[in-house]
Amino acid sequence: MNPAVLHLPDLYRPIEADLARVVAIMDQELQSELPFVAQLCERVRGYRGKMLRPALLLLSGQSVAGVQGAGGVTSEHHTLAAVVELVHLATLVHDDVLDQAEERRRQATISSTNGNEAAVMLGDYLISHAFHLCSSLDSQSASRLVGHTTNVVCEGELMQIHSRGHFKLSEPDYIEIIRRKTAALTAACCRLGATHAGADETLASRLEVFGESAGIAFQIVDDILDVVGEQKKMCKTLGRDLELGKMTLPVIHYLREASAEKQDAMLKKLASAEHDDRAHVAQLLTEFGSVAYATSVAEQHVSRAMNMLEGLPESASRTSLLSMAEFIIQREN
Amino acid sequence: MNPAVLHLPDLYRPIEADLARVVAIMDQELQSELPFVAQLCERVRGYRGKMLRPALLLLSGQSVAGVQGAGGVTSEHHTLAAVVELVHLATLVHDDVLDQAEERRRQATISSTNGNEAAVMLGDYLISHAFHLCSSLDSQSASRLVGHTTNVVCEGELMQIHSRGHFKLSEPDYIEIIRRKTAALTAACCRLGATHAGADETLASRLEVFGESAGIAFQIVDDILDVVGEQKKMCKTLGRDLELGKMTLPVIHYLREASAEKQDAMLKKLASAEHDDRAHVAQLLTEFGSVAYATSVAEQHVSRAMNMLEGLPESASRTSLLSMAEFIIQREN
Repeated sequence: MNPAVLHLPDLYRPIEADLARVVAIMDQELQSELPFVAQLCERVRGYRGKMLRPALLLLSGQSVAGVQGAGGVTSEHHTLAAVVELVHLATLVHDDVLDQAEERRRQATISSTNGNEAAVMLGDYLISHAFHLCSSLDSQSASRLVGHTTNVVCEGELMQIHSRGHFKLSEPDYIEIIRRKTAALTAACCRLGATHAGADETLASRLEVFGESAGIAFQIVDDILDVVGEQKKMCKTLGRDLELGKMTLPVIHYLREASAEKQDAMLKKLASAEHDDRAHVAQLLTEFGSVAYATSVAEQHVSRAMNMLEGLPESASRTSLLSMAEFIIQREN
Repeated sequence: MNPAVLHLPDLYRPIEADLARVVAIMDQELQSELPFVAQLCERVRGYRGKMLRPALLLLSGQSVAGVQGAGGVTSEHHTLAAVVELVHLATLVHDDVLDQAEERRRQATISSTNGNEAAVMLGDYLISHAFHLCSSLDSQSASRLVGHTTNVVCEGELMQIHSRGHFKLSEPDYIEIIRRKTAALTAACCRLGATHAGADETLASRLEVFGESAGIAFQIVDDILDVVGEQKKMCKTLGRDLELGKMTLPVIHYLREASAEKQDAMLKKLASAEHDDRAHVAQLLTEFGSVAYATSVAEQHVSRAMNMLEGLPESASRTSLLSMAEFIIQREN
């Protein structure tokens, strides 16, 4: 038992009541009188996992309270937290179509049980409800940021699709892809939380960079876990990145730093994309230090994130944000 | 040569300059510095066909000018017309994934050349840009209506997916599906055009019903053409509805009205879903009068649509809207 192990429910304590409100708003938004639609939405409830994005938004809002006259979390935050989680759920549903994944959060994916058609349309339904919910706010400013963010997320996903099987993808290009597809949304969460609590532009920008850096680190760790994680703990199909020719940081490092001979052997493995090879690829990447390298890059982004919170007054929410950044590195699923 | 044949460019004459502006706004919104994304967007330009939805929005705006102090078409109309066309393009791209279609507007579909993954994400990109563009307007009212509309469209698509292969689908259920998946957007176009020109609620509602009725008629005719249309004229893969077990009005009529023996024979054909049978199915549906029945239902909706415009003053735009309703029945593609 490691006493320093972080548990999300502990980190979420300052926003417990707020998160309950967010879940209620999501449930209300996804109500449908059509039985088949209601049934699919019920399935999507099971996709709600860590609620990281709503938590980032709410904690960011709370953490700026009192700074230069900024307020705290308002009912707008609850709506916006539901919006970002709906956007995230939509990307999960469509990602499962893209990745042909069979399992997510220990349950069969919608694409695998109801077909790609239903999954494509359910993802669209979730995106649509996200924007619909966002348009219930008084001002357009959040809709503009959310719309801009989803533009960037889609670009990141398209870049990733285009880069599949490009074994010479550079590290900067990889970082740019994950900055768009993952970190753009976490950055927007922190900015929205801050601005809607009344933070000024300087403070909002710092929180945005916190969210972006944390998001980049999160995705690097996610990619590492896809290679070396334990299937049981991850609750989703692993090894898909390798199979689909999706480049991840350990592989990029290996193909850049290993001897020509080793590179050739790795390229052959990647091109064959045999699922059985996952364990061997993991071993090679670990032994050569490529996993450690990728972890160190993630750690740098976590440090950068934590630095951004230095100017904030001590508070339970600030502590939680710092712990969430640490959690990214610690997590095993 | 039939002198009464309608040509869309003639009907669009009152809004020619406006449509050029709409295209420019769309092009600007879809600009991307990422080569792969820009290349896909270039492909999407080829999907722009009849521009029916922007035309409905603009003509609706023009047609109410002068009624109880309503103005005419504004720059907001141009933006909104681009928004609804982007929404429509997104549904086309995702429909091609759903229908596994290979051809649209005489060119290969994006799903067939770039894979379903790219098509799913490109559709998301288009939806995202539609909402992003909509959020550039001063007020949230359009975002709310567009968000509500896309919710309804997705529900219609999900109902349709769920009803595939349900050969006992009733006519009211079929109409409800197409009211949602197709007519909700055309209804929203006409309402948006009217309200943003300053029309009062009564007038806006009448134009909304015009758009809804026209949309229902349009989809019925689309479904008829999928069965009896000519491949060359339609510029897209035909017979998909039959193959995919999608129920259409001629088939619903046949399975309701034909003798038990004929019904059985038809059900066997539908279950086998042989592409070669399309010609024979078309013949059966035509000879039994099911195509004529479906056409008559479409005509009723067109009449209803045209009645809605009775209170409007004579104008070129009103004439165009009436002709567009007629065009729905006449069209061969």
